[in-house]
Amino acid sequence: MLKENQDAFGRAMYDYYASGMKATHLEEVVERDDGYVDTAGGPAIYFREYRHWLPEEKKAMRYARGRVLDVGCGAGRHSLYLQGKGLDVVGIDNSPLAIEVCKQRGLKNTEVLPLSRISSKLGIFDTVIMMGNNFGLFGSYKSAKRLLKKLAGITSKNGRIIATTNDVYRTDNPDHLKYHEMNRKRGRMSGQIRLRVRYQKYTTPWLDYLMVSREEMEDILAETDWRVRKYFDFDRPMYAVVIEKKK
Amino acid sequence: MLKENQDAFGRAMYDYYASGMKATHLEEVVERDDGYVDTAGGPAIYFREYRHWLPEEKKAMRYARGRVLDVGCGAGRHSLYLQGKGLDVVGIDNSPLAIEVCKQRGLKNTEVLPLSRISSKLGIFDTVIMMGNNFGLFGSYKSAKRLLKKLAGITSKNGRIIATTNDVYRTDNPDHLKYHEMNRKRGRMSGQIRLRVRYQKYTTPWLDYLMVSREEMEDILAETDWRVRKYFDFDRPMYAVVIEKKK
Repeated sequence: MLKENQDAFGRAMYDYYASGMKATHLEEVVERDDGYVDTAGGPAIYFREYRHWLPEEKKAMRYARGRVLDVGCGAGRHSLYLQGKGLDVVGIDNSPLAIEVCKQRGLKNTEVLPLSRISSKLGIFDTVIMMGNNFGLFGSYKSAKRLLKKLAGITSKNGRIIATTNDVYRTDNPDHLKYHEMNRKRGRMSGQIRLRVRYQKYTTPWLDYLMVSREEMEDILAETDWRVRKYFDFDRPMYAVVIEKKK
Repeated sequence: MLKENQDAFGRAMYDYYASGMKATHLEEVVERDDGYVDTAGGPAIYFREYRHWLPEEKKAMRYARGRVLDVGCGAGRHSLYLQGKGLDVVGIDNSPLAIEVCKQRGLKNTEVLPLSRISSKLGIFDTVIMMGNNFGLFGSYKSAKRLLKKLAGITSKNGRIIATTNDVYRTDNPDHLKYHEMNRKRGRMSGQIRLRVRYQKYTTPWLDYLMVSREEMEDILAETDWRVRKYFDFDRPMYAVVIEKKK
């Protein structure tokens, strides 16, 4: 769980929500461990309503069914949509303020919890969603394998995972390409981005956020209980994947 | 002069200009030395045309006459306006890419030069403008006094300085108020902000940017060749000042 002074993106979401979702100047900053900084466009995206989602996101979301675990639920846009459809949804996030926003917006079941701490205490799920590039929360090749095993243990026989990720190889930004190369040299996956989020005086700890190509996705799933069922390509270097249990 | 990898705000301006002034995601980040980060709203403001300036900015600009030195000219919005009015303007900035943008936009006289390096080689000026909070470039109480002396030496008998600054005391942001207190404790002016600008992989050196109340302004001018002629209060915690030579 993030401490109060670490809850950078939660604080940005909270401030944006408290402004009546009007403030445009409240932007979190993403700092990569090579010193590259980027702004993420502000928290508005975490509140985007279904009708403004990308078409592929909508398509992927149709695969959600039964009891749903939303990992890194943020301001709860996916959870609230599915809850509105009548599904039983649990939203978890390691940001206390993100969860506070979810509660205020009407999400019934929430817990302040990072992916690494999930357990059977949450019950059994039919669908795990990791939207908004949250495949990244798997962190690294090794921890993805470990966490996929954990997820297998808390999902039903026909359980599935719906996730989105950037395909990091689809860029021509020389700074990004150089960073990928640095990663490979230090024995990390190209898209294993070491970053921290900053907002005003709030700074998250450094964390690994993993973005993978389709091939790498399948390499990670090999020798796990999971396999790819379907991909959805976005009109940008990003895709959604529906992962299901091997029969 | 900023080195290539230090030219954060110049690069942001350059990229914005190269996008046909359309890109909205190119934002520089301001990092204060207490770890507080803020986004500045992007480079668009540096390109704002006269008709979109704040009324007080327009009023202050009417005091420009004769030969003009624009200190920290950025993308040249003030310089280009005054040049268009027929004035003889020299724009200086320590950012090579800011000056490149000014040239491409048609500013005739430019030099890559920080305020600290100005000299009589530039000739004599009737007006020195330091707009867009560029009073801040004076840096500190001591260096303001030193640089005001230097400016007195390169201005005509009726020379004036037109500057804008934030009044740092007009805030209720507890993080800012705490920072002011820290500054006073370490023997600095409350509004002597130690910061660096970051944009993608570009990071300026740490620099002191000075923001003062009216009283502090007059305290700085005391025992110099300069005095306040007129203030213009903005509808925000900011004001313009016209400074003239003592008779």
